[in-house]
Amino acid sequence: MLDINDIISGDQNTGARMIRLIEDRDPSAHEVLKAIYPHSGRAFIIGITGSPGVGKSTLIDALIAEFRRLDKKIGIIAVDPSSPISGGAILGDRLRMQRHAADPNVFIRSMASRGQKGGLSRAAKDAVLVLDAMGYHIIIIETAGAGQTEVDVAGIAHSVGIVTIPGTGDGIQAIKAGILETGDVFILNKCDRPDADAAEFELNMMISMRPASPGSWKAVVVKTRALDGTGVKELAQVFLSHYAFLNQEGRLEKKKKEIELRYFQGLVTDLVLEKTMAALETSKAYREALQKIELNGTDPLSLAETVMGGITISNFNSP
Amino acid sequence: MLDINDIISGDQNTGARMIRLIEDRDPSAHEVLKAIYPHSGRAFIIGITGSPGVGKSTLIDALIAEFRRLDKKIGIIAVDPSSPISGGAILGDRLRMQRHAADPNVFIRSMASRGQKGGLSRAAKDAVLVLDAMGYHIIIIETAGAGQTEVDVAGIAHSVGIVTIPGTGDGIQAIKAGILETGDVFILNKCDRPDADAAEFELNMMISMRPASPGSWKAVVVKTRALDGTGVKELAQVFLSHYAFLNQEGRLEKKKKEIELRYFQGLVTDLVLEKTMAALETSKAYREALQKIELNGTDPLSLAETVMGGITISNFNSP
Repeated sequence: MLDINDIISGDQNTGARMIRLIEDRDPSAHEVLKAIYPHSGRAFIIGITGSPGVGKSTLIDALIAEFRRLDKKIGIIAVDPSSPISGGAILGDRLRMQRHAADPNVFIRSMASRGQKGGLSRAAKDAVLVLDAMGYHIIIIETAGAGQTEVDVAGIAHSVGIVTIPGTGDGIQAIKAGILETGDVFILNKCDRPDADAAEFELNMMISMRPASPGSWKAVVVKTRALDGTGVKELAQVFLSHYAFLNQEGRLEKKKKEIELRYFQGLVTDLVLEKTMAALETSKAYREALQKIELNGTDPLSLAETVMGGITISNFNSP
Repeated sequence: MLDINDIISGDQNTGARMIRLIEDRDPSAHEVLKAIYPHSGRAFIIGITGSPGVGKSTLIDALIAEFRRLDKKIGIIAVDPSSPISGGAILGDRLRMQRHAADPNVFIRSMASRGQKGGLSRAAKDAVLVLDAMGYHIIIIETAGAGQTEVDVAGIAHSVGIVTIPGTGDGIQAIKAGILETGDVFILNKCDRPDADAAEFELNMMISMRPASPGSWKAVVVKTRALDGTGVKELAQVFLSHYAFLNQEGRLEKKKKEIELRYFQGLVTDLVLEKTMAALETSKAYREALQKIELNGTDPLSLAETVMGGITISNFNSP
């Protein structure tokens, strides 16, 4: 097992090894996570999402620099499957954020989906826990698109920034799908493009149409041009303002509890599946079902029922 | 319960009601699916994916018209969260594909993610089963992006088309992330844009770098301009060629078995979770764990273990 003290003291090699264990679903990761849990809970977690090509990496690179100027230790977890960091893209892109690689107060890791359903948001949450325990003040999770993974990952963050660009209209389309509700900050990148004002207007319209309760955060639109840093200082300030807002009237505590609750439910789900699949895979009925599908394409719905009919789940704590 | 004969005879109202039941996870849907299963297995399933804004809807609209000219009955399932059909976008877009709405041989349905992890690909597979039993010759599943949902949904299709556009480079980025391996047809839409030739070259390069085994399908690049129908006839032919290719040497049978196997495993997983969560939610330990999180943020990792410790999974069919 990894030395927990190495994580808490912020050793980046140990942190990187730990994140690898999480990705690999190594059983020892669970024990380490339990041990470091009491040292977590201090970081501000920002989720940044947006379609490929809107300039997320460049923007986050600029944001890192800005937060460093404010003397914040900053961690990045890239779970964007098309992200340069997570191995999606060409070398030039991959190097873009690496100018911070030599800074001991910046820690950038990518996480790949290993194909497990829902596994990525669980792994991202585990990784946030590690970076949090390592002492990073701000942790940015980068995701792409508007799929379920993004909605799940947004559910880990305290503050969600959605990046879009003017002119295409499709940014807006993507946003409208469920992820709109989760956006705290709308980032209109490449704001020197034509139609930037129209896009800003449209975003503000959408925000004004969201149901707002008294005392809830009103989402903000920030225009940026990541390439030359335009608007990035303001963007950092908006995120910090949101954090200050959350720290009032117990809002952050409430949000943290919701996040922990989802984490707990995800953990239970994972444990149940592990335990049951292990029991199933040794079962004769399961092996026979696999053979039947292989041989003649028997109705999988009935087969699944048959297999499950042999499984009993009893709860000794109940009621 | 719905009348199974109404589904098999292709009644669109009944089909629509059935898909609603699937989305709502109505228990009666499972019985209907079992009953119609023997009437499925004849359709050619095409998956079409690509980032928002690449013109998927317009392209699919043109593809519907082309397949109709070839006298194919065609069904569409849109699981793209940003799709005009699945309710993402503005009215003008929503209407785009609706010129086929009056054609009794075209059936277009959208499916929304109800927030269940992995639930969307399961629901999409169920819906494909319905459209297949209804007698549609070709079923197109539309998804967006490059997330896990898209990879899962691609796993339902016999043939996967990936739509990208020239000039941005990000289309390629998105493609490179895992979904590349699953692409059978690469569709370069808006091919009148500058850099179309460069993008085509890049796509062909990527295809040539994929590991190819003897007798495997070599992915094809098709240049289209969905707005005026350029290349759409060729695209339809490429899909049909791929289908003809799959129908040789037992390839389609093999692929179908793989799909059924994943479907079976997904069904078992769902049943396990349903059964366990039902057992858990009545348990004292689970309720106590929820309270502990609410009260003081106890380590969810240990809580999950405690709760699971009280759960016993016995397998009466084993070994």
